[in-house]
Amino acid sequence: MEEDTGALPLKDDFSRWYNEILWRAEIMDVRYPVKGLYVWYPHGFAIRKRAYQILRELLDRDHQETLFPLLVPENEFMKEAEHIRGFENEVYWVTHGGRNRLDVPLALRPTSETAIYPMYALWIRSHADLPLKLYQVVNTFRYETKHTRPLIRLREITSFKEAHTAHATWEEAERQVQAAVELYREFYRQLGIPVIVSRRPEWDKFPGADYTMAVDTVMPDGKTLQIGTVHHLGSNFSKTYDITYEDANGEQQYVHQTCYGISERSIAALISVHGDDRGLVLPPAAAPLEAVIVPILIGKRGQEVLAAAEALLCDLQDAGYRVHLDTRDIRPGAKYYYWELRGVPVRLEIGPRDIDAGAVVAVTRLGGRTTIGRGKVVEGVRSVLDRFADEIRTRADQEMARRIRIVDSMEEAAEAVRSGVAVLSWCGSPGCAGSIEETTDASILGSGSRSPHITLADQPCIVCGEPGTTTLIARTY
Amino acid sequence: MEEDTGALPLKDDFSRWYNEILWRAEIMDVRYPVKGLYVWYPHGFAIRKRAYQILRELLDRDHQETLFPLLVPENEFMKEAEHIRGFENEVYWVTHGGRNRLDVPLALRPTSETAIYPMYALWIRSHADLPLKLYQVVNTFRYETKHTRPLIRLREITSFKEAHTAHATWEEAERQVQAAVELYREFYRQLGIPVIVSRRPEWDKFPGADYTMAVDTVMPDGKTLQIGTVHHLGSNFSKTYDITYEDANGEQQYVHQTCYGISERSIAALISVHGDDRGLVLPPAAAPLEAVIVPILIGKRGQEVLAAAEALLCDLQDAGYRVHLDTRDIRPGAKYYYWELRGVPVRLEIGPRDIDAGAVVAVTRLGGRTTIGRGKVVEGVRSVLDRFADEIRTRADQEMARRIRIVDSMEEAAEAVRSGVAVLSWCGSPGCAGSIEETTDASILGSGSRSPHITLADQPCIVCGEPGTTTLIARTY
Repeated sequence: MEEDTGALPLKDDFSRWYNEILWRAEIMDVRYPVKGLYVWYPHGFAIRKRAYQILRELLDRDHQETLFPLLVPENEFMKEAEHIRGFENEVYWVTHGGRNRLDVPLALRPTSETAIYPMYALWIRSHADLPLKLYQVVNTFRYETKHTRPLIRLREITSFKEAHTAHATWEEAERQVQAAVELYREFYRQLGIPVIVSRRPEWDKFPGADYTMAVDTVMPDGKTLQIGTVHHLGSNFSKTYDITYEDANGEQQYVHQTCYGISERSIAALISVHGDDRGLVLPPAAAPLEAVIVPILIGKRGQEVLAAAEALLCDLQDAGYRVHLDTRDIRPGAKYYYWELRGVPVRLEIGPRDIDAGAVVAVTRLGGRTTIGRGKVVEGVRSVLDRFADEIRTRADQEMARRIRIVDSMEEAAEAVRSGVAVLSWCGSPGCAGSIEETTDASILGSGSRSPHITLADQPCIVCGEPGTTTLIARTY
Repeated sequence: MEEDTGALPLKDDFSRWYNEILWRAEIMDVRYPVKGLYVWYPHGFAIRKRAYQILRELLDRDHQETLFPLLVPENEFMKEAEHIRGFENEVYWVTHGGRNRLDVPLALRPTSETAIYPMYALWIRSHADLPLKLYQVVNTFRYETKHTRPLIRLREITSFKEAHTAHATWEEAERQVQAAVELYREFYRQLGIPVIVSRRPEWDKFPGADYTMAVDTVMPDGKTLQIGTVHHLGSNFSKTYDITYEDANGEQQYVHQTCYGISERSIAALISVHGDDRGLVLPPAAAPLEAVIVPILIGKRGQEVLAAAEALLCDLQDAGYRVHLDTRDIRPGAKYYYWELRGVPVRLEIGPRDIDAGAVVAVTRLGGRTTIGRGKVVEGVRSVLDRFADEIRTRADQEMARRIRIVDSMEEAAEAVRSGVAVLSWCGSPGCAGSIEETTDASILGSGSRSPHITLADQPCIVCGEPGTTTLIARTY
């Protein structure tokens, strides 16, 4: 729907690259006439559907999908004091229906604890109802006053996957926190996106939580992007909403809860981590099209090539591939450019010489060429796609490793956060955190991270010398 | 999450039956603390997902899925005068973000013309961009002041599938109206739901449309439920939003548009048309589980039966069936009751005698028994499911036929609408419509219906004797 005019900026100029690739690769249109609200183009939405299908399949193993209302009445919303303080400046309020003022203002959910937990109070009766693990994929709203940015900082988060679980004990809920972290790791592994998991400092935890684990990735400009959070809610909400179960002894007990979310920031990470100067680079699992066939229709054998390309299309479709045959009347080079921009993992070229050789040429989005015998094309394309998925995952892992630096001094830390994450030891005190954040002009991301890239053992605090914990420092989105 | 206490009311007592089956079969919970907003239970949501998957597959043949924002700024919303008059009393308004009053109030979309068409004005440039056929599945909002009812009359329509197309000419748009009607017919055919398609009278068309085609079904209480609409918008919106294309002669022309929608009323119809005194009856295509295996674990051969049931489960899962093995420690009869209430199409019983006979007993939700040889179980279950789908479709068609009556007099019409639809001829004048509606205490549904059940040729108007058109009269939801 848009003409490709001019070239994509280089990815080194990340902010411009990001803004341009969104419309050039037909991910989002930013011209909707309200700040912070954007339109998903069909191609962007198709990528979102693929990614969320992976997420749903992981969740569906032991969660159930459900759907709760968007509108939360003010009285329910205002029940949990700490939670409200965290959100009250960000909530959109519906005050009128038609020409009438509503008796009770309705909040557009910024997140759904206050919509879901009154129902959990009705649904949970006995220990046999536990654990309860539900999720929904919904639009949520934040009245962001900061600079908004497509997929990253939005007023309508269109694709919030939020899971809410209830358990008999605090320890069971803690195990669920770990399970959720592992689920998110697996989700991002399938997308080839490297992540760091850490425990957020007290002042940065979810309002109403006992603690928050966060999943971050490092963006090409060295800033970290939070792309998943997992919260241990303890019994804070169950006490507010009176969610109890009868235990084996017939006593009423408060449930212990967790909640965890992922939004379309996962798509922002997918675009940013893998993309390059020529456009999107999609892992096959998230690609609406795994392969595109470009027939080389030159010379007199055009009809023959077209027929061969159509036969190839049929064979691959029958084998279950998502594949498209590009028969447009434009030069092959223009087609290459078009599909590279949109991130299709593999291009299959077939021309007169390939027909004569009984072969098809597969070129990956990163330029790797493989000649596949026509008779083995179904297995051959699978193998090319699998290797390509490994290649971009490895490439992203190496990039992440390059951006994480163990530092010995505040000066080194200040240097390291300009291109990524600094790893140091910190005692946990807000005072020392203030020092670190001021000197580095960056934030305490979190502690207790386990990752092959973060090999620092706990050492004395870099500021005060008291016993410290391995801690990540970064500039954040 | 709920105990099954007491029995479902008889379906003849339809209104009570409907309200009770919603929670007993775990479709929706109506206890959410805002009028007209409901919670989807996982089982209800799983049915909704199946049905919408069918709808998406039909649309994806030549439409693309997309996603537009929920919030529409007042100035865009207020542009199309006729459209606004149709919705202004039903629109929810967001007036505050945090503690701030918004400069421009934001409407929660009641439908998305006013959100989508400003973008179409940017996207459509030339005839090469046409036809444009997009759809989205979204939540929409209506401040209903009438009696609300789950899935039928809602304040949050959680599952509005709306398609919006643009064409070069009025005639092309008209062909799209026909294509959309056929698409909806096919959708409902796959769900086994019989429909009547008719053209709504002028005063009942979509605000801003040239005309509206509607898809209705007849509910068990004889009232019709509108379960799909298709609107020819002409160039009414393209003139308001300035959506033009350059034709082959280089002239700017307004596009001609259509839009068409289906909501979770499709699920209300699915439940109501097929359900019976024992609970839901789901067509296999929309059933989260196609089959449930109930092992008959009596006597000494319990372990052997369980092993046989597990082997059966594996075979059916490997063959792609959605199937569950119910190993709960309760009586088989209680399991039958449980799964019948939830509408599972086929129950597979396997006990010691079946093992000895090398067979499995399949019992459909309507009671049909088939003994399938264990070696042919994969094909056997497919055949049972296919016959069951035909059986419930035929049953629903016959019920529909029974409820449509061609009438010769107003007295007969008044009688016919008490149990369904009266078919008569009407001249098209509002005066005669008023007479008909007053005498029958029912509404003009629409005209120009093509259906094997509606065989009346156009005759003189039943009121004034002027030339008339075959017209449907019914009490409506």
